[in-house]
Amino acid sequence: MAKKLTKRQEDYSQWYNDIVQHADLAESSGVRGCMVIKPYGYAIWEKMQAELDKMFKETGHVNAYFPIFIPKSYLSKEAAHVEGFAKECAVVTHYRLKNSEEGDGIVVDPEAKLEEELIVRPTSETIIWDTYRKWIQSYRDLPLLLNQWANVVRWEMRTRLFLRTAEFLWQEGHTAHSTKEEAIKETEQMLSVYAEFAEKFMAMPVIQGLKTENERFAGAEETYCIEALMQDGKSLQAGTSHFLAQNFAKAFDVKFVNKQGKQEYVWATSWGVSTRLMGALIMTHSDDYGLVLPPKLAPYQVVIIPITKGDNIEKINKVALQVKTSLEAKGISVKYDNRNTHKPGWKFAEYELKGVPLRLALGERDIDNGTIEIARRDTLEKEIYQIVDIDIKIENLLSQIQDNLFNKALTFREERTYKADSKKEFIDLIKKGGFVYAHWDGTSETEDLIKKETKATIRCIPIGVQEEEGVCLFSGKPSNKRVLFAKAY
Amino acid sequence: MAKKLTKRQEDYSQWYNDIVQHADLAESSGVRGCMVIKPYGYAIWEKMQAELDKMFKETGHVNAYFPIFIPKSYLSKEAAHVEGFAKECAVVTHYRLKNSEEGDGIVVDPEAKLEEELIVRPTSETIIWDTYRKWIQSYRDLPLLLNQWANVVRWEMRTRLFLRTAEFLWQEGHTAHSTKEEAIKETEQMLSVYAEFAEKFMAMPVIQGLKTENERFAGAEETYCIEALMQDGKSLQAGTSHFLAQNFAKAFDVKFVNKQGKQEYVWATSWGVSTRLMGALIMTHSDDYGLVLPPKLAPYQVVIIPITKGDNIEKINKVALQVKTSLEAKGISVKYDNRNTHKPGWKFAEYELKGVPLRLALGERDIDNGTIEIARRDTLEKEIYQIVDIDIKIENLLSQIQDNLFNKALTFREERTYKADSKKEFIDLIKKGGFVYAHWDGTSETEDLIKKETKATIRCIPIGVQEEEGVCLFSGKPSNKRVLFAKAY
Repeated sequence: MAKKLTKRQEDYSQWYNDIVQHADLAESSGVRGCMVIKPYGYAIWEKMQAELDKMFKETGHVNAYFPIFIPKSYLSKEAAHVEGFAKECAVVTHYRLKNSEEGDGIVVDPEAKLEEELIVRPTSETIIWDTYRKWIQSYRDLPLLLNQWANVVRWEMRTRLFLRTAEFLWQEGHTAHSTKEEAIKETEQMLSVYAEFAEKFMAMPVIQGLKTENERFAGAEETYCIEALMQDGKSLQAGTSHFLAQNFAKAFDVKFVNKQGKQEYVWATSWGVSTRLMGALIMTHSDDYGLVLPPKLAPYQVVIIPITKGDNIEKINKVALQVKTSLEAKGISVKYDNRNTHKPGWKFAEYELKGVPLRLALGERDIDNGTIEIARRDTLEKEIYQIVDIDIKIENLLSQIQDNLFNKALTFREERTYKADSKKEFIDLIKKGGFVYAHWDGTSETEDLIKKETKATIRCIPIGVQEEEGVCLFSGKPSNKRVLFAKAY
Repeated sequence: MAKKLTKRQEDYSQWYNDIVQHADLAESSGVRGCMVIKPYGYAIWEKMQAELDKMFKETGHVNAYFPIFIPKSYLSKEAAHVEGFAKECAVVTHYRLKNSEEGDGIVVDPEAKLEEELIVRPTSETIIWDTYRKWIQSYRDLPLLLNQWANVVRWEMRTRLFLRTAEFLWQEGHTAHSTKEEAIKETEQMLSVYAEFAEKFMAMPVIQGLKTENERFAGAEETYCIEALMQDGKSLQAGTSHFLAQNFAKAFDVKFVNKQGKQEYVWATSWGVSTRLMGALIMTHSDDYGLVLPPKLAPYQVVIIPITKGDNIEKINKVALQVKTSLEAKGISVKYDNRNTHKPGWKFAEYELKGVPLRLALGERDIDNGTIEIARRDTLEKEIYQIVDIDIKIENLLSQIQDNLFNKALTFREERTYKADSKKEFIDLIKKGGFVYAHWDGTSETEDLIKKETKATIRCIPIGVQEEEGVCLFSGKPSNKRVLFAKAY
């Protein structure tokens, strides 16, 4: 029977946890705040990685790998960065254990204390810029366009699977440039890459914008982000791209000789997305029946289930495998589940829960009639199709599902995007949930005040937002454009 | 001009370091024993990963991800394992830093001490088997065939780039089975996968065998390995596959209900290869001119260099790009280096150093004659080819290079594989370097003695080695087969 899922209306947060658990995506481990990513969840992450990696390489980036440990002194070198990252982190102080003298286990060997503590990387700007100093001498060495796929650790107090975990997986791009203009162009390019990935592969519409000073990356001069609206009306920051100016070059003394023969500090960017995207994916499309996956990121796009009591299985196997082969020839991934340990009804529920985009069912009568039953996960509609040209039909259906999921999410967002023109209206709309465009006076003080009063933060100053005269809803001071507010993950 | 490489004859160890450095593979970082894997080195590792990952998936395995931290108490649960792994490791004791009271930097916050220390994983058996307890109830849940790509840390005292580093990248397979036979079959299967990868992709011949008790993985009942002979006559263990019996299931209480309804402990295997393979690859094929890469693992298999003073570059570009396109249509990776910041001679030296299998040079006279110069990195031979059907010619050449590298390495090994029938002969042969097959009485004591006297260890008891009566060269006791000795990395 189907595993019992909490409904979104009842308890949204529990619904999320239920999906993560019952769709076999991830679970908590014996280590506080650290998750185990289960094979089905990891297969989705691998699909994300493959697409992103391709996009990074197409835009000229190469991968490399830097140490997981950062000497404590490195973190202190960039003033803003240390404030943002040095606090909640895992600190390695010793390099050896030994048998306890009481013979009851192992203890830390006090003689194996490190001279300088090592921090498990919360992000790698410092160790990478310490390395770039050795790699960059001349403008000929630039740009450096590097990316790293890695695990990072931030000692979060309250953790949630995928959304906020002590250890998470991510990619972090770190580029070095000879001019400010080129670095800004790179920052913007990577934001576009993230937005394109979110919309085309995750089927998740995003708003692109700039963070305010309050929400900026520690050490950045400008942070660009993509923000997506979740089904509970809260915003989720899905990716960031930072223009770091010369801050890290100055902190780590990375200079280059320009074409005119003069020494200059190098310009930098960094950008990243993480396994948090898994949380965003789940909350964008899933429903009360379980996970819903866009075809482009589904570990298998189609599952075929034989409907039989076992006596006619060979006949069905033959046709099912023909269908599978013809789909695979089109590059469609297919799982044929003819296990006899589980009944068709159990399988239907299982693959619904796991969000497989299309479910094909094949019984003896179908074989006789040359038909097959196709169920769409996104609409839950079932239809009988002639098996002729099934590969083309399925290909079209998968493409329709991908588009439908995006459009559904876009409509959802548009229906929950508002303009507020008074403080009261603002407070009511924020309570209701969704994106609220409103005037703001541009100060951190007002932003803090709004957060305190309403729990809403400025998600971003959207790129390309129209200029428009107005007054800040909280301070009454003048404003020349609306910014995007929401409660956020 | 060419960067200066030490010759193998002069100083083998320095030659290795020079190649790693000058071919831009890796370098030491500011963190003791941890390396930075540079983009060109990482691109080779990515190729290795892609092939291995494909082979793992073809044999039914899926990827997952487990936490980087292991609670100290987990390590103690399996008696042999704790002895092998708990000693030299990175220990996290605190989770917060704070500004020092003197205002001169950041210090560990003594109030943020962990109740139980966390170990940065040296290997993941313990955390994975702690998780498997929750996943396995019945024989229906078995087998579990999981793999993880991850970083691990072992606090090695003497480190060498790729060969022995405090942090390294690897994959670790961890499987769970309902019978001993199935687990042994899996262990052997993965050994074959490693051997096939080493020979077909790395072009590196390997001996497959069993480790003696002394060299066995801590916690295993049997360790299988592949061993390769390096150019200095030392052996390198390139991969291991462990039959763990029920040791971890017992330590972590992982039982399943079998088909007869009875509870049994689960049977386990684990298997891994690491970035150490990069060291093996370098030392198997490279020469005094630099790195030599087998085509199947080269980041680009072909480099095309225009020979021009710049005036006829458009004419050359046109033909070069036609050649590039025709090669890429065959799935061959090509770099066209028409930078005008570097001269052809510099480029020739650079790509020779980086081990690119084929170098194509194209000058104005070639354009007129419809020819192209092709230089093979493995033999250093140059030849002029007609440009007609160049794609087929290059495809054949790459395949010849792949085969030639394997055969060369195999001949090298065969010429340095000996049988020793007296203690004196054994000592002389080990001094000379190479693989020595000799009788051994089967005891750890004698193995220790031999190591002490000669620095040679038993690399493995080769699979399929012929039974043959003899006496141990050191103890004089009877032996029924020869085992493989060598000095080792």
